[in-house]
Parts: sequence; C-alpha cells; structure tokens
Amino acid sequence: MWGGRFQGGPAELMREINSSIATDKRIWTEDIAASRAHAAMLGAQGIIPAEDAAAIDRGLAAIAGEYAKDGVAEDFALEDIHLHIEQRLSELIGPAAGRLHTARSRNDQVATDLKLFVRGAIDENVAAIDQLETAILDRAEDHAATLMPGLTHLQSAQPVTLGHHLMAYREMLARDRSRFEAARQRLNECPLGAAALAGTSFPIDRDSTSDELGFDRPTANSIDSVSDRDFVVDYLHAAALCSVHLSRLAEEIVLWVSQPFGFVTLPDAWSTGSSIMPNKRNPDAAELVRGHCARIIGDLVALLILLKGLPLAYAKDLQDDKVPLFDAHDLLAISLAAMTGIVAELEFHPERMRTAAAAGHSTATDLADWLTASGVPFREAHHAVGRAVAAAEAKGVSLGQLSLGELREIDPRIGEEALKRLTVESSVASRTSAGGTSPERVIEAIAAARAARRSDR
Amino acid sequence: MWGGRFQGGPAELMREINSSIATDKRIWTEDIAASRAHAAMLGAQGIIPAEDAAAIDRGLAAIAGEYAKDGVAEDFALEDIHLHIEQRLSELIGPAAGRLHTARSRNDQVATDLKLFVRGAIDENVAAIDQLETAILDRAEDHAATLMPGLTHLQSAQPVTLGHHLMAYREMLARDRSRFEAARQRLNECPLGAAALAGTSFPIDRDSTSDELGFDRPTANSIDSVSDRDFVVDYLHAAALCSVHLSRLAEEIVLWVSQPFGFVTLPDAWSTGSSIMPNKRNPDAAELVRGHCARIIGDLVALLILLKGLPLAYAKDLQDDKVPLFDAHDLLAISLAAMTGIVAELEFHPERMRTAAAAGHSTATDLADWLTASGVPFREAHHAVGRAVAAAEAKGVSLGQLSLGELREIDPRIGEEALKRLTVESSVASRTSAGGTSPERVIEAIAAARAARRSDR
Amino acid sequence: MWGGRFQGGPAELMREINSSIATDKRIWTEDIAASRAHAAMLGAQGIIPAEDAAAIDRGLAAIAGEYAKDGVAEDFALEDIHLHIEQRLSELIGPAAGRLHTARSRNDQVATDLKLFVRGAIDENVAAIDQLETAILDRAEDHAATLMPGLTHLQSAQPVTLGHHLMAYREMLARDRSRFEAARQRLNECPLGAAALAGTSFPIDRDSTSDELGFDRPTANSIDSVSDRDFVVDYLHAAALCSVHLSRLAEEIVLWVSQPFGFVTLPDAWSTGSSIMPNKRNPDAAELVRGHCARIIGDLVALLILLKGLPLAYAKDLQDDKVPLFDAHDLLAISLAAMTGIVAELEFHPERMRTAAAAGHSTATDLADWLTASGVPFREAHHAVGRAVAAAEAKGVSLGQLSLGELREIDPRIGEEALKRLTVESSVASRTSAGGTSPERVIEAIAAARAARRSDR
Amino acid sequence: MWGGRFQGGPAELMREINSSIATDKRIWTEDIAASRAHAAMLGAQGIIPAEDAAAIDRGLAAIAGEYAKDGVAEDFALEDIHLHIEQRLSELIGPAAGRLHTARSRNDQVATDLKLFVRGAIDENVAAIDQLETAILDRAEDHAATLMPGLTHLQSAQPVTLGHHLMAYREMLARDRSRFEAARQRLNECPLGAAALAGTSFPIDRDSTSDELGFDRPTANSIDSVSDRDFVVDYLHAAALCSVHLSRLAEEIVLWVSQPFGFVTLPDAWSTGSSIMPNKRNPDAAELVRGHCARIIGDLVALLILLKGLPLAYAKDLQDDKVPLFDAHDLLAISLAAMTGIVAELEFHPERMRTAAAAGHSTATDLADWLTASGVPFREAHHAVGRAVAAAEAKGVSLGQLSLGELREIDPRIGEEALKRLTVESSVASRTSAGGTSPERVIEAIAAARAARRSDR
Repeated sequence: MWGGRFQGGPAELMREINSSIATDKRIWTEDIAASRAHAAMLGAQGIIPAEDAAAIDRGLAAIAGEYAKDGVAEDFALEDIHLHIEQRLSELIGPAAGRLHTARSRNDQVATDLKLFVRGAIDENVAAIDQLETAILDRAEDHAATLMPGLTHLQSAQPVTLGHHLMAYREMLARDRSRFEAARQRLNECPLGAAALAGTSFPIDRDSTSDELGFDRPTANSIDSVSDRDFVVDYLHAAALCSVHLSRLAEEIVLWVSQPFGFVTLPDAWSTGSSIMPNKRNPDAAELVRGHCARIIGDLVALLILLKGLPLAYAKDLQDDKVPLFDAHDLLAISLAAMTGIVAELEFHPERMRTAAAAGHSTATDLADWLTASGVPFREAHHAVGRAVAAAEAKGVSLGQLSLGELREIDPRIGEEALKRLTVESSVASRTSAGGTSPERVIEAIAAARAARRSDR
Repeated sequence: MWGGRFQGGPAELMREINSSIATDKRIWTEDIAASRAHAAMLGAQGIIPAEDAAAIDRGLAAIAGEYAKDGVAEDFALEDIHLHIEQRLSELIGPAAGRLHTARSRNDQVATDLKLFVRGAIDENVAAIDQLETAILDRAEDHAATLMPGLTHLQSAQPVTLGHHLMAYREMLARDRSRFEAARQRLNECPLGAAALAGTSFPIDRDSTSDELGFDRPTANSIDSVSDRDFVVDYLHAAALCSVHLSRLAEEIVLWVSQPFGFVTLPDAWSTGSSIMPNKRNPDAAELVRGHCARIIGDLVALLILLKGLPLAYAKDLQDDKVPLFDAHDLLAISLAAMTGIVAELEFHPERMRTAAAAGHSTATDLADWLTASGVPFREAHHAVGRAVAAAEAKGVSLGQLSLGELREIDPRIGEEALKRLTVESSVASRTSAGGTSPERVIEAIAAARAARRSDR
Repeated sequence: MWGGRFQGGPAELMREINSSIATDKRIWTEDIAASRAHAAMLGAQGIIPAEDAAAIDRGLAAIAGEYAKDGVAEDFALEDIHLHIEQRLSELIGPAAGRLHTARSRNDQVATDLKLFVRGAIDENVAAIDQLETAILDRAEDHAATLMPGLTHLQSAQPVTLGHHLMAYREMLARDRSRFEAARQRLNECPLGAAALAGTSFPIDRDSTSDELGFDRPTANSIDSVSDRDFVVDYLHAAALCSVHLSRLAEEIVLWVSQPFGFVTLPDAWSTGSSIMPNKRNPDAAELVRGHCARIIGDLVALLILLKGLPLAYAKDLQDDKVPLFDAHDLLAISLAAMTGIVAELEFHPERMRTAAAAGHSTATDLADWLTASGVPFREAHHAVGRAVAAAEAKGVSLGQLSLGELREIDPRIGEEALKRLTVESSVASRTSAGGTSPERVIEAIAAARAARRSDR
Repeated sequence: MWGGRFQGGPAELMREINSSIATDKRIWTEDIAASRAHAAMLGAQGIIPAEDAAAIDRGLAAIAGEYAKDGVAEDFALEDIHLHIEQRLSELIGPAAGRLHTARSRNDQVATDLKLFVRGAIDENVAAIDQLETAILDRAEDHAATLMPGLTHLQSAQPVTLGHHLMAYREMLARDRSRFEAARQRLNECPLGAAALAGTSFPIDRDSTSDELGFDRPTANSIDSVSDRDFVVDYLHAAALCSVHLSRLAEEIVLWVSQPFGFVTLPDAWSTGSSIMPNKRNPDAAELVRGHCARIIGDLVALLILLKGLPLAYAKDLQDDKVPLFDAHDLLAISLAAMTGIVAELEFHPERMRTAAAAGHSTATDLADWLTASGVPFREAHHAVGRAVAAAEAKGVSLGQLSLGELREIDPRIGEEALKRLTVESSVASRTSAGGTSPERVIEAIAAARAARRSDR
C-alpha cells in the first residue's frame, strides 16, 4: 500500500515484527463502522463521487457480513486490519475502493477505532458492575442483621453485620462506575479527520462523522488526536482499581472458605478439586480474580511506560497499546462475571460468624464508650478497659465473662448496665451513627443504593 | 496510648518500623483542622462538656501556632503525628485532652487527614497546570504561523505550525485538569465518624464535621471509609498521566536543543554545564522532568500493589501510602513549575525550523491530494507520488525541485498548479479542516481555549 | 563550577530541581574514598604534583572526619555532594583542590560512588539474610516434628511439619543470597577513569584505582561506564524478590495470629494496640513488611522506566536513580531485621496447629496412596476416596472417623491396615521422599543448610 | 478427574475462568518429557508394573507425535494441558494411564514443566544475544576509527568513534548473557517428586528424574518446590533489562535516521511507509522494540505482584504466571532478532557523523586538558576554556576557529601546540586510557570480546 517509494520489500522478520493483524483484527467492527461514516461524509461533501461512496458502503457492509460469519482470515502480507479491509474492499468493488482513504490516515483511523472499542468496553464493564452490585445488594439485604467479626489488621476488632460488610464493596463499585463514566466522557471526542497529523485540505465535515459515530464532538487538535492514548490509560486505571476491589473481595472469600474461618461454603459450581488430593475443594475462581488483578496492573504499567517520553506525533510504539488493553478488558470482564456468580451463590454460615464475632474481646470498645458516656475521659476509659482485657486473658476467659466484681476491681466506676453492652448483638445495635453498622443503618443504605440505581436509569 | 493491655513495651526495632512521624508530620495542618472540627461537634452534641471542647480548640490552635513556627519536633516514643498532637494537647490542657478521641479512631482520623491533603494537592496542581497552559497559549499565539516539521516516527511527515504543535500540549493539560477535578469530586466525602470501622454509639453529627471541613457529604459506609485509599490511587493516576505529558514535552525540548535539531536555545537560567567539559550547556531540567515521570509511575504502582488483595477493614499496610503520595506530589509540582519556566523562556529559531520543515519531501501528500482532488483515486495518487519521491531521491534533490516535465513523466495528470502545492507555506495554509494546523485554525483554537478558561472561573 | 561559559546564573527553580544534595549526601563516604584513590593515582602517575596529591588526601580525610562528626551541611548553591566536597576541599587546601578533578568527570565519579554503595548494601543485606536464616533454622529444628496443616489454595491439603514449612523460607533466602551475590560479582568493575564518556588523554592507571577500591577490574568501555545503571536494577530486583519472600512469610504470620487460626501469639514486643479498641493486639510489623514490598517493587519499576529508551551516554535522568535505590535499601533492611526478630520470638501453639492439621480430611491422599500401592490405578483410587470424603461429609464426620465397613461399601479393596494411614502423625511420617516433610527429612535438611553455611565462610 | 467428591459440575463461567488450555498447551513438549521421565522412574522403582510404564511411554511418545503434527486440539471440558494429555493417554492405552499420576501432583508437574520451558527460553535468548553481539562486533570493527559525536544529555560532548559507541552495547549484552546464565543455574533443580506439597510415601527416586531431565539436582524442600516462581521472575528481570538495552539502541537508531541527524539510512528491508504520506520511510521495527520493552516491564511487574503476599503452598494465582512469561519471551525473541538484522544492515553516513562530531565545540575538554598538563589546575583551565567557548559563540564560530591570539587574550598560557588538540581526529586519538575511545583501544576491545566468546564455547 505504501510501496511507490520502495524498491525492495521488507525483510521476513520485518514483516513479522510489524504485523499486527493477529491482535487488531479484533477491532474490525469499529474499523468498518468508522470507514462507513467516513465514506458517507466524503460522498456527502462531494469529495468523492456519490456512486463510489455508495459502492464503498455496500462493500464494507458485505465485508462485515463475511467477518461476522467466518472471522477475519489473516493474510501475512497485509500488516493490519485496516489493510485487510481495504484489500478486500478492492476485490469486491474495484478501483473505487482506492477513494476510501482520501483525507484520512491510518493514524486518525486507528485512534477512532480504538476510542470506539474503549467506549464499548466501558459500557460493557459498567453493565457488569451493575450486575455485581445487584448481587451484593441482594445478599446484603438478606444479611442486614447477620453478625460477623469486624476485623482490622485481620484481628477481631468490633462486631459488624455481614450486610454492612458487603455494602462496603457496593461503595467501591459505585466509585468504579463513576471512574469508568468519567473516562468515557473524557474520551468521547472524535479523532477522525486529523489525518496523518496536520488535518487535511479536503473540505471534510468532521461534525458529521463525529455525530454518526456517537461522539460528542470532534477533537480540537490534529497532532494531539493521533498521539493521544490517554483514554487507554484512563480505561486501564479504572480497570485496575476495579480489579483491586475484586481482589480484596476474592481474598476475603479465600479466607472465609478456609477451614479455620469456615464462614462460607462455595457451591460445587464454584469449586474445583485436586489431581492428587481427593479431599480438596478449592476456591480457584477467587484466586484467579486475585491473579488477574496482578496482570491488569501490569497492563496499566505497560501503557504508561509506552507513552512516557514519546515525542509527537504518532510513533509505532503506540501499536503496542492493544495487547495490554485487550488483555485487561478480558480479565476484568471475566473477573466481574465470576465474582457476581460467587457472591450470588456462596452459602454463609451465620453461626460460625456469630461465634467468631465474639472472639478477641470484641466488645471492649463498648465498655470504654460506656465509661466515657459516664463522664470518664476516653483515654482513661480506654486504659481501664485495656487492663480488664488483660485480666480476662490472664484468667483464660473473654471480657464478657468477667463478673461485675472483677471489673469493678479494675475500675469501680463500671456499673451493672455496662455489662449489657458486652454482647455482640448490643454492640452492633448501638452503632447507629450515619454510615454505621447497625441493622437499621444497613437497611437504609441498601434502600439508598437501590434508589440511586433507579435514578441513574 | 494503647498500653492498658500490654505488659512489655515494643522492641526497639518494632518502634522503628512502626514509627511514621518522619513522614506523617507533614499532615499536621490537616490533622489539627479535623480535630478541631471533631471537638466542636462533640461539644455541640453534648458528648463532651462545652468547656472541654473549648479548651481542646484553644489547645489545638496553640499547637498549630507552635508547629507553624518551629516545625514538629519528632519524638521517637510517639509513633505518629496523631499521638504527637494528642500528647502535646495533654501537656497544654491536661486531662480534658483525653476527651478528644471520643467517638473516633485513628482509622477515620487519618483517612480524613489524607483526603484533606489530597484535595489540597489537587487544587495546587490544577493551579500549576493553569500556569503552564497560560505559558503555552502565549507562546502558541506568538508562533501561530511559525513553520516547523511535523514528525511521525520522528521522521519528517508534513509541515505544521509551532503554535499548533504547542496547542497539542494544551489539549493534554485540559484532560489532566479534568482528571484531577473528577478525582477531587469523587473523593470529597468525609470519613470522620466511621471510627475504628463500625461507626459509633455516640450521637455524633457527621454532617456538621463534613461541612466544616468542606466535604460534600459524609461517606456512606464506615468499613469502606477506613479501608479506602482509592482517592490516593486516583490522584497518583492523574499525576502520572500529567507527568507523562510533561515527559513528552521534555523529550521534545531535549531533541530541539540538540545540535542536529537546533530548533531552540535554552536561556542560561535553564541550562547547566559540566564539571569536565567547558563547552556543555545541558537541558538538565527537562531531563529531570522525564526522570521524575519514571518515579511517579513507580509511586502509582506501589499504591496499587499495596491495596491488591487486602482484606477489609484497615490494615497497617495502608501506612505505606504516604511516602509514594508525597513523593509524587512533590515531583509533579516541581515538574510543572519547571516546564512553565522553560516554555515561557525558551528561544525558538524559526529559520532552522522552517528549513527542517521542508526536509524529507514533506509536501508529498499535498501532491497526492492534488491528484486525488483531480479525480484520481487516492491509492493511485499515493503510488504515483511515491515514485516521484523515489525519482527525486535518485537525483539527489527534493520533490519540490523536480520539474513539471519530470513529474509528468511519472504521471502525466500532474498539472502546473500542482507545483504550487509543494511549498511548506502552501501546505500548512491548506490544512484548514477543523482542528487542523493552518494558522487561522490555530488562532481560533487559542481563542477557544482562552474562552474556556474564562468560563471556568 | 561550570561557570566559564555562562552569563546569567540558573533560575531559582532550576537550582531547586537540579539540586540533589539532600539525597546524595548519603554517599559522601563512597565519594571521598573514590576521590582519595583517584588523587593517589594522579600523584603516583605524575599527573599532578606529589605534594598536591598528599594535600588532597589530607584534606579529604579531614572532610571525612567533619562529616562523620557533624553530618553534611547542605548548601543550596552547591548542587550535589561532589561539589560540596570539592568546595570544602578548596577551603581547606586552596588551589591544589582544583587538581583533583583532573582526568575524571562527575559522570564516572558518581557511577563509581554508586557501585561502592550498592556493593556495601549487598554485603549488609546478605548479612541480614544470614541472621534471618539462623532464626529460621533454629525454630525449624525445635519444630521438626511439630504438626501443622499443609495448605494449598489456603485449604487443608495434607499435614506437614512446622519445621518443613519454615525450611521452605530457608530455600527462598538461599536463592536471595545467591541473587545478591551474582549481582555483586556482575557490578564489581570500576568505572573510574571513563571520564565524561570517552576516556582521557592523561596517562592514568585504572588498574590501581580499581584495586584500591576493591573492584575486580576496570570497566571495559568508557561510554557504557557512565551510562550503565544495570547494577542498580539488579540490586532492586534482588531486593524486590527478597521482599516478596518476606511478604509471603508476613502474610502467613498475619493469618496465624488471627483468632480463627490462632496458631501463633506475637509477644508484646512485636505487637501494637489501637487508639480506640482496648482489646487489640495487632501484627503491625508483619503488615508493614508486606507494605514495604509494594514500595520496593515500585522502586524497581521506576528504575527500569528511567533507563528505557535512554540514548547514550550519561543523561540527567540518571540522577533519579538514588531515591528509589536508597528507599528500597532502607525498606529491605528494616524488613529483614523485623522478620528476624519476629521469627525468633513468636510463640507457636502446637495443639491448635495439630487440630487444624486434621481438618478437611487431610489424609485422604494417604488412603488413595494405600489403594494405589495395593495395585489400584491411582486415578481409580483417587475417585474412590473422593466418594469416601463425600460420604464422611454427608455424615458430618471426618474421613478418619468412617468405619472400615463404611469405607468398604465404597470400595471393598480397602483393608484394615489402610485405617492406620489416616492419622496425621502417620501421614507426615510416611513422606520420606527426598525433600519431603517427614521429621527425619527435615532434620537432614537443617543439617545440610547449616553445613552449606559453614562451607560458605 | 477430581470428581469423586463433587455432585454438581462447575458453572459454565467457572469452567471458563479456570481453563488454561489456550495458554498452557504451549508447554506440551515439556509436559510429555517430564511425564516420560516420571513413568520410567515409577517403573524402575517397581511402583508401577514395568509393562504399564512401557505402555505409558509408548502412549506419550505417540501423543507427542500427534501434537507435533496437528497441534493440540483444545477441549473445553479438560481444563489444562496436563488433563488433555492424560485423557488422550487413557484413550490410547486404557486403565494403565491411570497409573501415571502416582506419586505426583499437578503442582510439582507444572513447576517442572515451567522450569524446563524457562531453561529452554534462556538457551534460546542467549543464542540470540550471541548473534546480536556478532553483528555488533562486525560493525564495530568496520568503524573502529569512524568519528561520531559523543553525546551526554543528547548534547555534543566529546568526539568518539562509532566502533567504541557500538561496543558499549556489547558490554550490556555481555551482562545480559551473564544474567540469563545465573538465572539458569539458579533454577536448575528439579521439583518433580514434591507431589502436592509434602512429598510422597512412594519410594520414588528423585535423582533419576532430575538427571533424566537435565537438572543439576532435585529441589530441597517440597513446599517451596510447588510455591516457587522465583525462576520466572529472574527470567523476566533478565528479559526486561536486556529489552531495556535494546530500547536504548532502538532509540538511537530512531534518532540517527531522523532528518536532522541523518547519520544512518535503514535499508528498504527494514523500513515502512505510510498509508497517506508517499514520502515516508519509517523505522517501525526500532520503535516496536522500544514498545515491546514497555510490555516486558509490565510482564515483570505482573509476576512480582502475583507472588507478593501469597501464603504457602501452591495457590491458583500462580496459573497467571504463564501469559506474562510467554509474552515476554516472544517479545524479547523478536526484538533481539530484529535488532540483529538492523545492526547488520543499516548504512552509516560517516561524513554526516564526522561533521556532527565537531559541533558544539566538542574539543573544549582537550584544550582544558592541555592547559592542565601544562600545570594549570584543572578547575582554572576549565574556567578559561569556558570563556573561550563563550567568545567563540559570540563571534559565531567554533572554538577551533579562534586564532591563537584570540585564545591568548583569554588565557596567555595557551600555546601553539594546543591548537592541534582542537581537531576531532586528534581528540579521539588521544583518548588512549583503558576502555577509552581511541581506535587502538577499540580494536583491542573487539579482540578481547571475540576471545572471550571463543573461550566460552
């Protein structure tokens, strides 16, 4: 295609390193959509004959049909998806195909294709986030009052409700959605018409191609248009952080199904066995979600490095944007889907969680708070209760099993009603501050989240 | 402070690894602001006596005065800035200091402090971006019609204007601003009142502390509130991408001041010499901007790794969020400032750039476009011109130096008026498509950017 | 220092971004050592007068004394440690100081200093690895026969011994040591004498400075000598992987001290409390070791990015090598020391571990192996035992609690002696293959490790 | 295969996320080799009947033949390559196939396969490094005396020879080779026989399988054996750093072929054109080498993150080691091959390089050195020459064009013979220090490198 100037053809190895068809065939849908919009505009503006524009459109539609049916046949001699399509168009409609590339370059073409792909990927991911959020809201509602240990440093801290714990992930997902949506809005400007880097002298109508492809407006600067891959980095950032959230939940599931925790059983549908140990029942999917997160972060890093220090305008380094992008997209998509299935189907064991919630003297803060509410400065109350915990440990019992007399030996200001604060039920019920873990607050939070979802639509 | 339960003190090494004062003393302003808001709320809600609330407020104000004047004296025995301040408060106002920590934990406290810091960092960075944008707009305006080579693959591609090239960076900076602003909006919910992780039984008023500290609303889930560092990652992402943009400009400056390019001279104020070579005049600042970008990406990576797979709620790993955050902030701040100075003061050499703009047969596309506009399919035109370029090269001249006769031997459809298209001035003037490089489009783009700035304020 | 050519001084901001004294003052020892070796060589070769060489040596020794006593006073006007020392030398000995920089540049000087620093850092880290290995060997010896659950996927897999589990970390540390040692050997060539990048016309003796500074030989190529930071990357790689190993152990300690596991208690000396919860006893040091790993990986990434795509020879980007290097060194040093303390002092609870070792039908493989040894193909045996596990689960008992009759209903080939295989003690004792978990193998492995240590010295 | 315990099959999505056949089919050669060694050992030890061992061996050989001919047919129901092979073996030889998995697990099996793969990858990469080194040595020999500008900060520093410059890359490659070889040596211990994680009770002979597969010895600890992926990280580190070196050379080639530099022409075989601009001749391969480096670093990061904080022993996260490993291997392999082709075939333009070598007053250091050799302290000489450069610049000439009179006005100690030092030829010839750029030193360095290569073999 660019052969007029060249005598010898590329070395075999040059062809191989330069060929991207194995990767970029994936964006044939976007490439054909963008080419059809471009051809229609060229025809409407009189830049190419109307009949050629129509022939091109018919040809591209036919190619789309072929690809949808049979996939893209990779031809080693045609380096990328753009040339594959142009070559096939030429076979189908003859010399008129040669008019399609008027007033554009592969530089603006691939930037447009890639933005279309990322936009679609965002819409798909956001829909998957919605589904996971639904699963979380449903399980949280069922377990708004189910007790479990609240952990910090993986140590028993204070009792919480399972519904509240799950809703923490709803907050993360809401931020993820917001991050994807901001990325979508930021990218939604159409590069088509930037041509090689300088714009063109043909009287093109960039507004019309932008509209046709669902962009908000054309990009403002042609050099930036062909050099910019910020939108890929924004996408990878949102994907990486969403994946980090899934990895946190996955880590918890791995912990919860371990024998010492035993909070949860995974159904057979989400468990795997071992080739050697007949007893195994492994949470492979959760572990893979965690592993996929590592790779998505790696993909983000690759893109940032790719762009760092790259002079304007387009450089071939940018071709290496696609493998990390596609990899991250696929890993996030399956991670979201798997976590949705797992969250929806895992079986909680409330009695194990209730027992664990009481471990580690988890209501010690309640006793300190009771003392504080009686007028003791908190620091002093904290210290007194610390000594009570030490006494309970020395005796081999839990804080709640100390008698009033024993507690009063440590601090005589401890009253009888303080003892009622030492059950996990009472502790959880008392945490009624906004955003707190008491069942009523959790119910409110679920309702608010559902309302926000409705108003989004 | 947490000693009631413990017999032995920490090992010396435990103190050392656990101590964060050398790092977190930097957020004393934020910590005192949040504590004052918390104490006022506790007093207003009757949770602590009004006179104690007032004493705490006076004490904290006094400490702020001391720190502003003398800095924070690091005490090895007090692990972090929170304990330093609480200890000093205790010295200043006695036991009432012990009431300040009612209904809060260091977990929600540090999350609040850190959000305040990041919010301030964003505001500072955005102001610096505005200044760099101003410098770019000013230089672009001066050079809206100055010719330079437009490069792709670092090869002469088509002539562009220097103003247009600079305005590409304006587009990147506008996206950076938008990214920082979205991060700011996403983070602006107040964690204070989440306490350790479960909320509290004290009748706190989270709306009041949130308002007082300039947040939009309290966070919705207490467990998420103390576990969330997404806002640090969002900040680092925005910082990394902004720094990538600066690194691209820095790379270009390094190229432009190199002897073979010679497009630019850096003033003495932005040059350095060598300890051994008396002839040197190095663009150190631009190189450091490039180097700083590597470190900021490293900081982003560190945070993502830190969070990956971390179960809820707070874990001490999160203490390692600060060094990368502060490092990235400082590196970006100085990078933005240095690039502003450099852009404002570098001296362009338009004649060198004009000469370079004509190299590499840079108007070949114009000839192909002329043929296409005459009805030749673009692919055919492209091929013909490719042969013309080969002919020029064989003859050792530039495309524009071939005679009409020579051109017509290659393609008889080439007309006399085509020759006029082969000057760089004509080429640039013809690129009038929206977002194109023609001087009139550049002038329009600068005006639009200035108008957008005005309407932002 | 490089002022002859310049009219105006640097901008204030230029000074600030360019100044590295706050960071590189740390390598004053190395800088002075290298300068003394250089001066002695210049004197010996007659390149500078012997009396000047002697004066320089005395002056540098005096500066070393000052710095050792009072630290390096940072002077904003002198950009780096090299200029600080040269300036002070000039104050102490007058114009002869100006002869020190003969036949060298800061480019080879800083490369030499940095290699000396990294070499010292490696020696220090290797010594710390040795100490941690000692702690592991000692604890492993005490617990060569202590039973614990062997986990895969964090699920009960097969019983193992605690000694064997700890010895897995010994293997990782042995690889770490080997990695550091290989890095040390690879870096140990002296760059001094490469000068700016081209070597020098002075008759220097590079062998003598190389010997004096403990290098194996001078570097072979002057351009590479000043451009190379591979040795920093090698160091960071070894540090990152060593830190990954520590993070795996830290993760296990965090799990083991959690209430559901309860395998281990951390002594007070290695525990921290909470500002709000009097009951807490947190494994902060282990969590920080995990957090530090994230940062060290970030440091490695920064260096790789820094070097990527950098043309030869020295560029100022390389100045950004020091912060990541020093950061990683400090984080690894404290991580190794803390883990050594923790491993040496943590208190195991063998009875809890023994109980956990039996959970999850952990001897199911032993039954399958028994069947296999009786001639049943392993796949068939595996399937039969899987059904036995399912039967036990349905009945709510462990596999070992099924009667022979119940087992024979599933597979009549199961004989009475098979039942003896179902205890955790028997299981562990049977794993006598090389590198296996049986106590005798563990004892052998410890002895072999100790012998390897002795022969290393 | 692990179905005895399970009632329901895996969810469709569980199958999908869990399936690794699309990736790990690549290691079928290694898997079959390891299985054949294992089966032979089982037979020799009498653990399985000799005729079954023989049948297994024949079956595996047949499968290898099938795969070599037709590739691996992916079966969605069989999750990985191990099960594919075992299933096919069962079809070929019946129930005896069920004996193959005696005394091993997929955990030790995949660790063994992967080590074999990495070992082979190293051998392949080292051979490719040798080829690139050969190309460099050949070109360096041709151009041992060819002048070019030595750059620091991309600014003219001092003249060097092209041969010397190329030999800097030879040094990097020699370190790369050493790094790969150290990684190879460190990994070469055989995990087979570690079984699930604890070893086995069968009387296996680990030495025999280790020998058979070319390992130096069996691994020492069974838990470490199945948890360890350090060898993948070591490989990725070596690959990343080697790729960084290639990216530096690639960056230089991109610069050298740019019109302002014009040092080099790429032959047609290594150039590409543009879809729009008939004049283009782009160094795509070099740019892709740079881009690939970004991705390889991303792969290294992914692996480090994967391992960080992972408790022992095997976890499914480790399955995500393969995509980054294979990706990095393929990218490095093609990068090395492409750079070898480019280095061997690029056409240098010595006259352009000679002219550029004289730019920027590049012999100023020579004048300062002359003064120093006359007894002037270097600092004083440096300052004087700096003023001479400023004078030359003010006059618009190069330093070498100043007359002796003009120079003596600046410093009367400058003698006539100093002028001879101001040619680039003289400058380069004078740099005879060890490792310096003078042609004779370059010739020696090439000879030494060739001798080292010969003695390696």
